[in-house]
Amino acid sequence: MDARDEKATGGGAAPALPFDGPHLDALMERAGIDVLVVSSKHNVQYLVGGAYRFFFFSHFDAIGLSRYLPLLVYVRGKPEDAAYVGNPMENYERELGKFWMPEFVRAWGSLGSMAAAVERIRKLGREGATIGVERAFLPADAEELLRKELPAARIVDATIPLERLRAVKTPEELGYLRLASERVVESMLAAIAQHGPGSTKAEIVETLRREEVSRGLTFEYCLITAGTSLNRAPSDQVWREGDPMSIDSGGNYKGYIGDLCRMAVAGEPDAELEDLLAEIEAIQMAARVPIRAGALGGDIFASAGEVLRTSPNGNILDFVAHGMGLISHEAPRLTDAAPVPYPGDDAGQPLQAGMVLSIETTLPHPRRGYIKIEDTVVVTEDGWEAFGDGGRGWNRSGAAAKA
Amino acid sequence: MDARDEKATGGGAAPALPFDGPHLDALMERAGIDVLVVSSKHNVQYLVGGAYRFFFFSHFDAIGLSRYLPLLVYVRGKPEDAAYVGNPMENYERELGKFWMPEFVRAWGSLGSMAAAVERIRKLGREGATIGVERAFLPADAEELLRKELPAARIVDATIPLERLRAVKTPEELGYLRLASERVVESMLAAIAQHGPGSTKAEIVETLRREEVSRGLTFEYCLITAGTSLNRAPSDQVWREGDPMSIDSGGNYKGYIGDLCRMAVAGEPDAELEDLLAEIEAIQMAARVPIRAGALGGDIFASAGEVLRTSPNGNILDFVAHGMGLISHEAPRLTDAAPVPYPGDDAGQPLQAGMVLSIETTLPHPRRGYIKIEDTVVVTEDGWEAFGDGGRGWNRSGAAAKA
Repeated sequence: MDARDEKATGGGAAPALPFDGPHLDALMERAGIDVLVVSSKHNVQYLVGGAYRFFFFSHFDAIGLSRYLPLLVYVRGKPEDAAYVGNPMENYERELGKFWMPEFVRAWGSLGSMAAAVERIRKLGREGATIGVERAFLPADAEELLRKELPAARIVDATIPLERLRAVKTPEELGYLRLASERVVESMLAAIAQHGPGSTKAEIVETLRREEVSRGLTFEYCLITAGTSLNRAPSDQVWREGDPMSIDSGGNYKGYIGDLCRMAVAGEPDAELEDLLAEIEAIQMAARVPIRAGALGGDIFASAGEVLRTSPNGNILDFVAHGMGLISHEAPRLTDAAPVPYPGDDAGQPLQAGMVLSIETTLPHPRRGYIKIEDTVVVTEDGWEAFGDGGRGWNRSGAAAKA
Repeated sequence: MDARDEKATGGGAAPALPFDGPHLDALMERAGIDVLVVSSKHNVQYLVGGAYRFFFFSHFDAIGLSRYLPLLVYVRGKPEDAAYVGNPMENYERELGKFWMPEFVRAWGSLGSMAAAVERIRKLGREGATIGVERAFLPADAEELLRKELPAARIVDATIPLERLRAVKTPEELGYLRLASERVVESMLAAIAQHGPGSTKAEIVETLRREEVSRGLTFEYCLITAGTSLNRAPSDQVWREGDPMSIDSGGNYKGYIGDLCRMAVAGEPDAELEDLLAEIEAIQMAARVPIRAGALGGDIFASAGEVLRTSPNGNILDFVAHGMGLISHEAPRLTDAAPVPYPGDDAGQPLQAGMVLSIETTLPHPRRGYIKIEDTVVVTEDGWEAFGDGGRGWNRSGAAAKA
C-alpha cells in the first residue's frame, strides 16, 4: 500500500487521551485559552503520547528553505476536534497507530504547517477564539500567518499552562527518568574507568557519548572540568595525575533527561579533596531531608541552606534545585537562581508525589578546581527516591592513556 | 579563573573571517540587506566557523520557560562590528578562542538574546537599517521584540542569500561530507551483517545508530522498509527470509550530513530483485555522466530521464537530485520534486566545483517493496567524485536473529 493513497479522516467519538485531559482543560480555562496550537517538540511529544517524537526530525529541523514544524491543534474540552499537522512522512507513524488525534494533516515547512492549522481552526468555526501558542517555539513567519489569517483571534502564550501540565510525572515517565539517570551514571563510571592521566577532556567526552548511546540513550551534552581550571567545555586539555575531574552530563531516554554530575580523580584523592566532596555531600543530603508530598519547595532550600551557612566554603558554594523531565529545567520552579529567569515561584507551594527534582551543589574552588554533585530526586507520598544514586564519591581513573 | 569575571570586549581591527566575506557582502548587497541577525544553528555554525556548534545545546533548545537562541550580528562590509550573542556557558568556548567576532554578549532565552542584539545594533547606530533574519528559525517573541525596539528598521528574510553562501563547499567541508558519507555506508553494512531473518526494523535501526556513533558520527535518522511494505518507519515489523530491505540513513560529522540509501536482502536476491536494482543503478549512473563544473543542473535530469523513460518500471520510478551539506536539502536547488517547495530553480544554472549533490532513484514496487539507491556526488572541475560509494548491490544479511 502506498502511503500517499491514504486519506486521513477526522470527527467521531471522543478519543482516549494519553494525558490528563480534564487537567489540561482546567489549565486552559484558567489561562483563558480556547484553542492550543502546540509547536515545541517536548509539548508535541507530551500531547501525542507514547513518548512520540517523529524519528526523521528528532535531532534537526531544517530542510530546504524552511523547517519541520509539527502543530497539534487542541480545542478545550473537545478532544474529538483535535488535529495534528505533521510532515508527510509522518503518515508512516499514523499507519502504525501512533496518533489519537482524529485528524492528521500533512504539510511541508513552517508556513505550510500553519496554513493547515488555520484551515482546521476555520473549519471548526473558531476564528474568534483565544489561541494559545508557544511563542519561543513558534517561528516568526508562522505566527505572522496565523495573525493575518485569523485577525479576530486573540493570540496568547501557553508556555506556562503546558509546563504545569507536565509537572507531576506518571509512573511511565518516572520509569524513563529512572532509566535515563541510572544509565548516565553507569556511562560516566565506564568512561572514567577507560581513561586516566594523559587523556584529554574531549576524548573522555567522546567515550561517554558512546557509552550513553550503547545503553540506548541519546547523548545530549557533557560539561567537564579537569584540574584547577573552571572551564567546562570539552577540549584538548589533558587530565593529569592527581587532577580532580567533574563530569556533568545529560542523556535522554525517549526524550526524558538524565542529568547528573559525578566526580573523578586521576589517582587517589588527597585529604583536602575528600573533605571538599564531603562538604558538598552534606548539603546534598540535607536538601533531601524535608522532601515528601506536601512539604514546601522552599523547605529544601532552608534545610540545605542551614548546612551551607556553616560550611567551610559556604561563601563560594552554590546550591540550586529545580524540576526536570522533558526539559532539564522545568516545573516545579523552586528558585530564582535557576539560569532562565522564572516569572513564577513554586518555592511556597507544596511538592506533589511524582515531581522530579534536580538538586545541585557546586564548589568552584579557586585552588582545587570545580567540584560538584548533581542528583535526581523524585518526590513520593512519604519521602523521596533518588534515581542513579551511585558513584557519589571520588571515582578513581582507570589506566593512564596509551599515548 | 572564573569565567564570570571575564569581560568581553569589542572593536578594533578587522578580524580574519572563516567564510568568504566579500561573497557574503555581495549577497547581502544584492538582497538589500545592511545587517544580518542570524539565528539558525546551521548558519550560526557556518558563520562562526571551525564547525562550531555550542555543545550544550547541540541537540535540544528548550530550557526553563524559553530556549537557547544564538544570534550572530553581522554588518555588511564591517566584520569588525560583528557580535555574537550566546548562552553564558558559551564563554567557555570564547576562552578556548572559538570566536572571531570582536564582541561576545551573554544572554538567556529568546527575549534576552534579541534584547542584546538590539542593543548592539543601536550602539552601531544602525536603527534604520534593513535587517535580514531567518524567519523560519527566529521565534515569534524575538522577532516581535526586534520590530518593537527598532521601529525604523526594515526586517526582511535572509534565508536565500545565506543558503547561497554555503552552496560551494570548501575542501574542509568536503572532507567532513566524505567522512560522513563513508561512515554511514560502513555503518549500514555493519548493521546488515549483524542482523538477519527474525530481526525487527527497530532492532536494525538501533544497531545502525550505535554503529554510526561508534564511528564518531551523530545519528540523525533512518528510514527503513522490509518485504513488500512501503512503510519506512522503524517498527516491530520482522525482516523475513527472502525480504528485501531499504536502509536510508542520515548521520552527521561536525554537522555535515551523510545521507545515503543502500539495499539488503535476507538470504539471496532472486533474478527479479537483481533486475530491479540494476534498473535503478542504470539511472543513478546515467545521472552522473554530465556532471562537471559548468554543466547545467538540468543536464543531470535530462541524462537520468533518458534512461528512466525506457525503463521497465519508468512509470513508477522516481528520480530526484538536490544539493546537500549542513542541511539535507539545500542549494543547488535542482528540482521542483524536492519535498520543500523551492522558490528558486538552479536547474538552468551551471554547476560549480565543490557543490555536493544527493542523487536518488526510488522504485516503490507494488509487489517487491521499496527499492532505492541514494548517492552523494561532488562536482569537480572535470567531472565528479562519489563519497561512500560502496555497498551499492544487494547486501546479504548476516546470521538469523537469535530469537
